[in-house]
Amino acid sequence: MTLLEETINSIGALDSAAQAEARTRLDSLTKPPGSLGVLEEIVVKLAGITGEKCPVVREKVVIVMAGDHGVVNQGVSAYPQEVTPQMVLNFLNGGAAINVLSRHAEARVVVCDIGVIGEIDAPGLVVKKVRHGTADMTEGPAMTRQEAVRAVEVGIELAQAEIASGAQILGTGDMGIGNTTPSSAILAAFSGAPLKNLVGRGTGLDDGRLEEKRKVIEKALEVNRPDPDDALDVLAKVGGLEIGAIAGTVLGAASRRVPVVIDGFIAGAGALLAARLCPQVTEFMLASHLSEEPGHALILELLDLEPMLTLKMRLGEGTGAALAFHIIDAATRIQVEMATFQEAGVSEKDI
Amino acid sequence: MTLLEETINSIGALDSAAQAEARTRLDSLTKPPGSLGVLEEIVVKLAGITGEKCPVVREKVVIVMAGDHGVVNQGVSAYPQEVTPQMVLNFLNGGAAINVLSRHAEARVVVCDIGVIGEIDAPGLVVKKVRHGTADMTEGPAMTRQEAVRAVEVGIELAQAEIASGAQILGTGDMGIGNTTPSSAILAAFSGAPLKNLVGRGTGLDDGRLEEKRKVIEKALEVNRPDPDDALDVLAKVGGLEIGAIAGTVLGAASRRVPVVIDGFIAGAGALLAARLCPQVTEFMLASHLSEEPGHALILELLDLEPMLTLKMRLGEGTGAALAFHIIDAATRIQVEMATFQEAGVSEKDI
Repeated sequence: MTLLEETINSIGALDSAAQAEARTRLDSLTKPPGSLGVLEEIVVKLAGITGEKCPVVREKVVIVMAGDHGVVNQGVSAYPQEVTPQMVLNFLNGGAAINVLSRHAEARVVVCDIGVIGEIDAPGLVVKKVRHGTADMTEGPAMTRQEAVRAVEVGIELAQAEIASGAQILGTGDMGIGNTTPSSAILAAFSGAPLKNLVGRGTGLDDGRLEEKRKVIEKALEVNRPDPDDALDVLAKVGGLEIGAIAGTVLGAASRRVPVVIDGFIAGAGALLAARLCPQVTEFMLASHLSEEPGHALILELLDLEPMLTLKMRLGEGTGAALAFHIIDAATRIQVEMATFQEAGVSEKDI
Repeated sequence: MTLLEETINSIGALDSAAQAEARTRLDSLTKPPGSLGVLEEIVVKLAGITGEKCPVVREKVVIVMAGDHGVVNQGVSAYPQEVTPQMVLNFLNGGAAINVLSRHAEARVVVCDIGVIGEIDAPGLVVKKVRHGTADMTEGPAMTRQEAVRAVEVGIELAQAEIASGAQILGTGDMGIGNTTPSSAILAAFSGAPLKNLVGRGTGLDDGRLEEKRKVIEKALEVNRPDPDDALDVLAKVGGLEIGAIAGTVLGAASRRVPVVIDGFIAGAGALLAARLCPQVTEFMLASHLSEEPGHALILELLDLEPMLTLKMRLGEGTGAALAFHIIDAATRIQVEMATFQEAGVSEKDI
């Protein structure tokens, strides 16, 4: 059995007994039942994942997967491709948004080169290059099926390694100039929804280039005809290395019964791939924010997840996941620290 | 001149030069311009309030105003009135949701008795009782106009005192069994919108009691006929003491050029009162979350504010404000800590 198969097979159901215990305690706390809304839902989900009535997810890691995209040749990004390795160095130096927000959330940032075109020689970088960028998907598959499997497995390995080192919750991050294009293509392949609803401005395309980007994705889908019932086919033909690795991160977390926070649109495409490989995995996901990319709402709908934050962000890197860590921490503290009606001598509902 | 008049007169415009400087720096940071969405808008708003390009709001205080409501006699709440003082004690003992979330946000909680029915003798409580609960507004005004002014002024005084002691940002909180009823009445009086869209289940009414609550509010509006062009008339006739004090907190913060985070529906009603007393004050507000109370979205629309969090909460106490502090802190750290394109050697947009 391959690592991917083994991982998928090991993903089980949530612990419903722990969830029931968590709910009972939540209802004993000094607040109207359910009045903390999503905070309460988070506690119950984490209880189901971890098996603990009062789950704790103190050790947080954002795994940022970086890769390049051959389709950038078609002019789909507002930034030049050299920005991918430049931003990887920025991550390693602590100067990017994900670094600031992770420090604020007391999370560690792990950066992995899964397929940047050039060689990056920098301390702290996890180098797991599957290939030097994808091929231009308007001319054929972005990668081979074997490479697609390998990209997912790198994500699994890294997630499992971080969990072995103590991580109690993971966040998914991405870096890759051009990567909203394969993300939109993946979503189109799985959903069959019209491209005009799924393609956005990415880092800031104008109207003309947005229209060209749509045509590029249309061509990639026509040339490759990915099979929506075969997630690895979709990933190989119109995906990206870091997107596959994000799918792997999600599967790896779930296989170890660790919750995973999904960032925005690119991470969402990875999460959708993971869910098509293993439907059960959505139970281990928490959605962070609703991105400005127009396809993101559909991804969340397909995953049956609701975002906690509405901040009109469209940066990626795991920035939404890092912000959501705080909300998740808050939820876990509610469950541990709030007084019960009995402890506080507060009267309960009288009707 | 009264304190209220003086405060209103002292509320000025935002510092547009500081806002422009803040925007210039935000656009120099290693991210596509505007890609951090609301985080960037927060920085610009805080710059305009504080006059600083890199605003800092480290010292945070949630002011929880507690008061009782005569209209509870009409059966508008799922909890008995004794819960108001019981929860005040819970706040002072650190066991309520607002305590947990404030500790998590590194914020202080200040609790003020502005009009609880009984006497609460507890260390740490700020006692500024304007009266012992409001009168039943289905039979006449909830309070006199003089008491309404005094309630607002207590809020102003407390906000200004906390700012004098170092607070750099305030959050608004409330406690008062029955207080969604006057909040809905205030919103109805100002907006003229149909009551069915403005009245919710509060702490958890069933369908039958929800319908009764609507009728109670209808009657209060008929009996009192509050003048929508006179905010103090609305507050006196169908308001609440803690709601008036929240309006005062908002005005007091703005008068000292300190940002104020609006919690949910009750705080929103207070913020709306403040905005009707002084339209300029909305510039100093940040909206935290979108409450489950059906009228809250309309309040935010009237204030021209958008919520950061969509957590289906309906607890009050300032819980949404405390959670939003983290997002606001995150925004201020982005502005201070992120590397610029030049510092990080990252290429800028090529189109």
